[in-house]
Amino acid sequence: VNLPVIETGDDYRTSLRDGRTIYFNGEPVKDVPTHSRFAVAVNVAADTYDRQRAGRQSGSTDPRYSQAMYPRTAQDLRDQVTRFSDPEVSKDLIWLSTHPSLLGIASAADDLAEALPEYSERMRVFVADCLRRNIRCMPTITDSKGDRSLGPSKQPDPDQYVRVVERTSDGVVIRGAKMHIRGASMLHELLVLPTKRMKPEESQWAIACAVPVNSPGVKILNAGWAIDREQSDYYPFSHERTVPLGFVVFDDVLVPWERVFLCGEAEHSATLVHNYGVWGRITEAGMMAADADLYVGLAMLLAEANGIDRIWHVRDKIAELIINSTLIKAGVEAAIANATPTRQGYLAPAELYTNVAKYHGAVNMTRMMTLLQDLAGGAIITSPMPGDLDSPETSDLVLTYMSGAGAADGEYRTRLMYGARDLIADWFAGHWQVLGLHGAGGPYAHRLVARKSYDVEHAKATARAALGLPDLGRR
Amino acid sequence: VNLPVIETGDDYRTSLRDGRTIYFNGEPVKDVPTHSRFAVAVNVAADTYDRQRAGRQSGSTDPRYSQAMYPRTAQDLRDQVTRFSDPEVSKDLIWLSTHPSLLGIASAADDLAEALPEYSERMRVFVADCLRRNIRCMPTITDSKGDRSLGPSKQPDPDQYVRVVERTSDGVVIRGAKMHIRGASMLHELLVLPTKRMKPEESQWAIACAVPVNSPGVKILNAGWAIDREQSDYYPFSHERTVPLGFVVFDDVLVPWERVFLCGEAEHSATLVHNYGVWGRITEAGMMAADADLYVGLAMLLAEANGIDRIWHVRDKIAELIINSTLIKAGVEAAIANATPTRQGYLAPAELYTNVAKYHGAVNMTRMMTLLQDLAGGAIITSPMPGDLDSPETSDLVLTYMSGAGAADGEYRTRLMYGARDLIADWFAGHWQVLGLHGAGGPYAHRLVARKSYDVEHAKATARAALGLPDLGRR
Amino acid sequence: VNLPVIETGDDYRTSLRDGRTIYFNGEPVKDVPTHSRFAVAVNVAADTYDRQRAGRQSGSTDPRYSQAMYPRTAQDLRDQVTRFSDPEVSKDLIWLSTHPSLLGIASAADDLAEALPEYSERMRVFVADCLRRNIRCMPTITDSKGDRSLGPSKQPDPDQYVRVVERTSDGVVIRGAKMHIRGASMLHELLVLPTKRMKPEESQWAIACAVPVNSPGVKILNAGWAIDREQSDYYPFSHERTVPLGFVVFDDVLVPWERVFLCGEAEHSATLVHNYGVWGRITEAGMMAADADLYVGLAMLLAEANGIDRIWHVRDKIAELIINSTLIKAGVEAAIANATPTRQGYLAPAELYTNVAKYHGAVNMTRMMTLLQDLAGGAIITSPMPGDLDSPETSDLVLTYMSGAGAADGEYRTRLMYGARDLIADWFAGHWQVLGLHGAGGPYAHRLVARKSYDVEHAKATARAALGLPDLGRR
Amino acid sequence: VNLPVIETGDDYRTSLRDGRTIYFNGEPVKDVPTHSRFAVAVNVAADTYDRQRAGRQSGSTDPRYSQAMYPRTAQDLRDQVTRFSDPEVSKDLIWLSTHPSLLGIASAADDLAEALPEYSERMRVFVADCLRRNIRCMPTITDSKGDRSLGPSKQPDPDQYVRVVERTSDGVVIRGAKMHIRGASMLHELLVLPTKRMKPEESQWAIACAVPVNSPGVKILNAGWAIDREQSDYYPFSHERTVPLGFVVFDDVLVPWERVFLCGEAEHSATLVHNYGVWGRITEAGMMAADADLYVGLAMLLAEANGIDRIWHVRDKIAELIINSTLIKAGVEAAIANATPTRQGYLAPAELYTNVAKYHGAVNMTRMMTLLQDLAGGAIITSPMPGDLDSPETSDLVLTYMSGAGAADGEYRTRLMYGARDLIADWFAGHWQVLGLHGAGGPYAHRLVARKSYDVEHAKATARAALGLPDLGRR
Repeated sequence: VNLPVIETGDDYRTSLRDGRTIYFNGEPVKDVPTHSRFAVAVNVAADTYDRQRAGRQSGSTDPRYSQAMYPRTAQDLRDQVTRFSDPEVSKDLIWLSTHPSLLGIASAADDLAEALPEYSERMRVFVADCLRRNIRCMPTITDSKGDRSLGPSKQPDPDQYVRVVERTSDGVVIRGAKMHIRGASMLHELLVLPTKRMKPEESQWAIACAVPVNSPGVKILNAGWAIDREQSDYYPFSHERTVPLGFVVFDDVLVPWERVFLCGEAEHSATLVHNYGVWGRITEAGMMAADADLYVGLAMLLAEANGIDRIWHVRDKIAELIINSTLIKAGVEAAIANATPTRQGYLAPAELYTNVAKYHGAVNMTRMMTLLQDLAGGAIITSPMPGDLDSPETSDLVLTYMSGAGAADGEYRTRLMYGARDLIADWFAGHWQVLGLHGAGGPYAHRLVARKSYDVEHAKATARAALGLPDLGRR
Repeated sequence: VNLPVIETGDDYRTSLRDGRTIYFNGEPVKDVPTHSRFAVAVNVAADTYDRQRAGRQSGSTDPRYSQAMYPRTAQDLRDQVTRFSDPEVSKDLIWLSTHPSLLGIASAADDLAEALPEYSERMRVFVADCLRRNIRCMPTITDSKGDRSLGPSKQPDPDQYVRVVERTSDGVVIRGAKMHIRGASMLHELLVLPTKRMKPEESQWAIACAVPVNSPGVKILNAGWAIDREQSDYYPFSHERTVPLGFVVFDDVLVPWERVFLCGEAEHSATLVHNYGVWGRITEAGMMAADADLYVGLAMLLAEANGIDRIWHVRDKIAELIINSTLIKAGVEAAIANATPTRQGYLAPAELYTNVAKYHGAVNMTRMMTLLQDLAGGAIITSPMPGDLDSPETSDLVLTYMSGAGAADGEYRTRLMYGARDLIADWFAGHWQVLGLHGAGGPYAHRLVARKSYDVEHAKATARAALGLPDLGRR
Repeated sequence: VNLPVIETGDDYRTSLRDGRTIYFNGEPVKDVPTHSRFAVAVNVAADTYDRQRAGRQSGSTDPRYSQAMYPRTAQDLRDQVTRFSDPEVSKDLIWLSTHPSLLGIASAADDLAEALPEYSERMRVFVADCLRRNIRCMPTITDSKGDRSLGPSKQPDPDQYVRVVERTSDGVVIRGAKMHIRGASMLHELLVLPTKRMKPEESQWAIACAVPVNSPGVKILNAGWAIDREQSDYYPFSHERTVPLGFVVFDDVLVPWERVFLCGEAEHSATLVHNYGVWGRITEAGMMAADADLYVGLAMLLAEANGIDRIWHVRDKIAELIINSTLIKAGVEAAIANATPTRQGYLAPAELYTNVAKYHGAVNMTRMMTLLQDLAGGAIITSPMPGDLDSPETSDLVLTYMSGAGAADGEYRTRLMYGARDLIADWFAGHWQVLGLHGAGGPYAHRLVARKSYDVEHAKATARAALGLPDLGRR
Repeated sequence: VNLPVIETGDDYRTSLRDGRTIYFNGEPVKDVPTHSRFAVAVNVAADTYDRQRAGRQSGSTDPRYSQAMYPRTAQDLRDQVTRFSDPEVSKDLIWLSTHPSLLGIASAADDLAEALPEYSERMRVFVADCLRRNIRCMPTITDSKGDRSLGPSKQPDPDQYVRVVERTSDGVVIRGAKMHIRGASMLHELLVLPTKRMKPEESQWAIACAVPVNSPGVKILNAGWAIDREQSDYYPFSHERTVPLGFVVFDDVLVPWERVFLCGEAEHSATLVHNYGVWGRITEAGMMAADADLYVGLAMLLAEANGIDRIWHVRDKIAELIINSTLIKAGVEAAIANATPTRQGYLAPAELYTNVAKYHGAVNMTRMMTLLQDLAGGAIITSPMPGDLDSPETSDLVLTYMSGAGAADGEYRTRLMYGARDLIADWFAGHWQVLGLHGAGGPYAHRLVARKSYDVEHAKATARAALGLPDLGRR
């Protein structure tokens, strides 16, 4: 199949009209691009296509929209992870996910080249074709899992982990569900990866493959992480930085062999998710560094509008925000400065620093929000509503009593409070915390990886030398 | 005026139809009890009236609904601050605010009895009448403040702090706005208190009085801290634990002299807010202790439904929730055990412990939420929606793939995730954090009060004795 | 045997000349009361005896020195745990340990009265006799343990847990070692308790008994937690608040049957240590509350002497010390307010609050010390030495350049820095941290106990009620 | 004057016999190299000289001992700040201080080249001569300060800040004292820098100069941060990683004009300390990164020797140590990756990251020590003493009952406990905490610098763009 290239925003919109099976709150979604809860996100994603095209036409190599994604230099890597500080870029959540997804597949293909050459070659072909088609994709990793104290083979229902229910000459039939897929309904390809290293007796769950969203049997339910368009005034930030979250069911979906990347080889089942990990985490860490900067800026705007920017405890809280932001950035910078070359010759960020940067950002996000809530004051949730700003009966009251210090008049300060509430004290804040915490693995996983990535033997040797103790060997 | 007693829920609904001037998003609210954003909260408040009446009729002295509010014993105090663990009680936010408000006025009356006997007597009469009428009220403290680096007299606009613009033989005319009033549109009386100790040159802003909500010139704009009734499934907790937050404008409101509690006596201007402080904070602390317990329970339900309740790091996170909860409760218990008698002979909670309990709860709330988000997993924001549970096309998919461990079937676990999201990762969580942080004073104020309430001289004497140092006297 | 009553400090000194086998740094200690590393601690302990006697003679019931140790009222309990704020009391570490030790045995006797009446009676007799004799004792709990991943029966050497190696008609012969015994060389009785619940196959290690320090086979090695007397100027606090720490070896010690409290009954082996736990922990928590107050006082003295007491960040750090101190005290107050009566009719502090108070104090101790180090400045470790204060060649230089603000002259400020260094930045600080952390159980144990003591079922019920969820029953 | 080059350790020892006036505990120190409290530190410093010479002779360019100190590349910088992980390097505290001192002077010379060319040239000549002579030096910054709430000109005694008391044709006469100088008695040159930006009326205190230690009028008192040689067994780490701390008095010291770098030019008085700052802090941060690694190693050795290395909460605590260590390293790596070229063409570490790395290390040091104390257990302070290991009466008891898991026999584990105690729970730990906290500026200073170094305007622009707000300009 020679699938078409997606060049423009309109191409993208058209590409979503491919017969896919999408539900929102129990209702079938007839047309994703125009559905009230998808339209804004689709427009955001379409804009990226238009910007990319404009860049190509002008010969630009703007790293914010570049498809030439393989980082060859430290600067390439830095460009990739710092582009999130551009609000236009950071709001297109599916564009941001596509990049690490394909890098993950590409580097897994490297790792598996010797042991599983045929699968490896399929992955390379698939990645190259995705780049050619300029599509959007995302790994689907987390299974429904049922009772989390039991492995796949011990579950009362074997479908709690996506598995192969049949093999035919055409391909494999898979069944199960994958959770937490940002913008699943707006993607082109779903990359099915095993969520963990499968044991020998769990080989039927050792399945990796690529599945077009419109494949028969793919059904996507959505959680409503998207605000209505008409609330854009009251939600100036989140109304564009959201996409419905997909609950993706594979209801006996046939996957042709050329799209199967693993099928039963349990011993290799963790390679794909592991390779994706570092790219997913550096993306999350880069987002967090950008957000941390945004929080510092917001703190300054709030302090200035409230006229408290010279009060010591306010300055001290801003210093704490700055230090937190700097530590996340430091982790990202260190991951870049210590990047390691892959077999294909591009640079992968250092695992240890990547993990720690993302971990630090995730576990401190709510602390940062608390500091901001403190600086903002109660007005963050009690400012009059957009209709009050507009109505002749109430407008003057709002303008008078919401005015702040200096040039911060009533309208400015009210809208600043909307933005602050949106970012740190409303539904988006909570959802964003959860995404930050669990995206690319939760805190516990990060602690595990940090422990594995650290050079503990060197540390022990240092301690022995410092204390004059002999080496007892490994236990 | 001999205002009627409010006995039943219906009396209460009727009482709100008194000509008050209320706006929601720029639109006048014609009828508060039936307005889509007020109706649920009004019903909650009405239910409390009905329960109180039932209690009176049955001769019960159930402390959860008691109007006999003066705590005489440690048990009385404990009853008051532990009743928030009853979900029925804790959701009626205006009932909960009324109690500390009147206690604050009553104890301020004590403090001012000698210096300002006439005002003091008016306050006592007012409190007694409120108890007789069984009304709902709330202090309005925070002014609009404009540029927070400037005092009232330095503001470009003198109305940024509520002030007396005219004195007549009938009373005083006040102008300005008070912020952050929970359920203002649903109250009967607004208690206007100066937000800080006024300086001699700020005497026009040293105004305290009681203002009926329907007084001409009182205009209440609302911030939409209230969910639509039809979302009760998706927001099982917050759809009842919210009330719109009032932005209260006093647009040249005449207040009769018998309702004026302070007018120009700058040197006494902090007495009212100070007396309210400890009652407001013990209420907040009691709420936080109850919430902390609720979070522990939620953590357990989540861990059990996910089948992770025996994993060590899950148990450790629950231990942290438990320790945090216990520290808040310990502060409350210590405030009760060290309560001091007032002049009127009732017991006031110890200021130091009250402050520290509230402070500890406020600054750790988001940490607790982060732990819960961690235990819940991504499903907290990605679980399919109520419509998906209902629709025949999607229901089976949800029931199958949302099922958890043991008896936690798909519906139970989905609804548990709704509750968890509602409590810790959606708009209510953010708003509740802000209310917890700023309610009855922000963290900085609590640190100040803690420092003032602590017996520093004893601590210094201890240190001197321990180190064998002489007393140098005070600097 | 009718052992003599110890009445005076001299009686106490004499009582230590009983043939006991004590070592210090490999050398036998011929005479404990006059040995250079024991003499100060012995004098401190002797002073307590003299004060107790003076109290008895004057008819005083000063709770600081009372032997009537069974708390009958909340005030009794509060008296006991707040006496540590008296520097004279808190420095006598063996007096402080004796009290909870005997209370632990007494309440264990209650718990075992039905199952093991003979042992129970022996314990009661023993406690009564200790009170009559007015002796000093301490539980010895922690075994040497060898490889901590193995239980007693799996160790390469069975003596890594104290065990019964022989039973005779006279009694039992025990072997092994117990660690970490404060002032072991200065006690009269060692209470041997099993360190954990023993399994059925570990019955030989289920041994509890009382052993006089001078029993043949008891050998005590010491770790040097005691400063030389001549350094009292430079260590104004710790030179009196230390006792050498005992490493107690039981080298085939015969224990007569009437002193055996458990011998092989593995199923009851945790009862003694559990009963001791709450008394040990409330003692530690009380000490921590007193120390926290001392730290607040020290902070104030440092800030005043340095002239920085009005700087905001200094005040803020002191506020943090105050809040921490108040939380520990709150835990202690709550433990008292929620005390539960024992079978014998005295009051035991509430386990949950006791644990959390001690836990909070232990894990935050170093944070408090860091704040103090910050306030003190570098002079805490760089102030000239006592000899410099005395020498005519250097004295003026010290007095000139060490002078501080106001009345804090060079000598005062130098000595204050000695005290500060001693308390928070020298050997005592480190050792005290370790004792605080591990005394009466480490942080992990406290988290476990907190989880067990919390009413989790109530919390779950609250959460279910708040979210409208059914009860699924226990898993 | 053509001062001799110091080539060997013996040259160094000889160089200290230059008539300097040194006191220890009030006694004159006749011969620094052989004095019991200086000898070990002098030997450590002498060894570095011998190693440097061996390196020169063998043509090595080992960066650990290189005098060619100007970093030209990121690798040069990294070499400099990572050499502290070599225990031999990190124990020579005066060698480590010399390097940043001279870099600070050199870069200040750059900054002042235009405004004060003569001073600038003197500094360059001085630095070049120091490098030629291969000497050891240190900035002396902190004045005695008296009442810290008052500036130099408001002090009761004007000598509380070092000042010029006389200007002659030969030079200036200075008076006052400088505090906290590590190894002052063992240096060759003291670099006197103003501690802060002096105001115009404080010009007599705007003095910077270089003073040989043996100048008439220089008197150094010492604080005893050095352990006796004979305790090396019990203090295996600190007995070599300490030097007495100098309290340096300038008792009317004549400084020739060619050694005066600033004299009265108040407006430039902060330039020297500011230039020193970043070099001093990157040195501290590098030390902290090395220490953090050492702590991780120590944690592993303790966990393995105790047999608890596979217990989850132990692994979790080690993960926390690893994450902390990685964050400090990340800050250092980011400071290197974002280094900025100076006028002279060498690279200076980025100020923001340098500060934050040092800050994070300093404020978390005690937390790390608490985790280690937890892993070590009480034996860290209760292990029998070196004499017990040696004595035939006690040796077997120690070997038996101190043995641990696997190959960790009694001697190994006892010595490991000595090392652990020395590093984290004894006098060195406390002193090291204070040095870490206050070295190159305290936490408050770091927060200030972080705020100044952060690109706040960019952050604000990001926030405005994200929220669609206009730029109100600067207040």
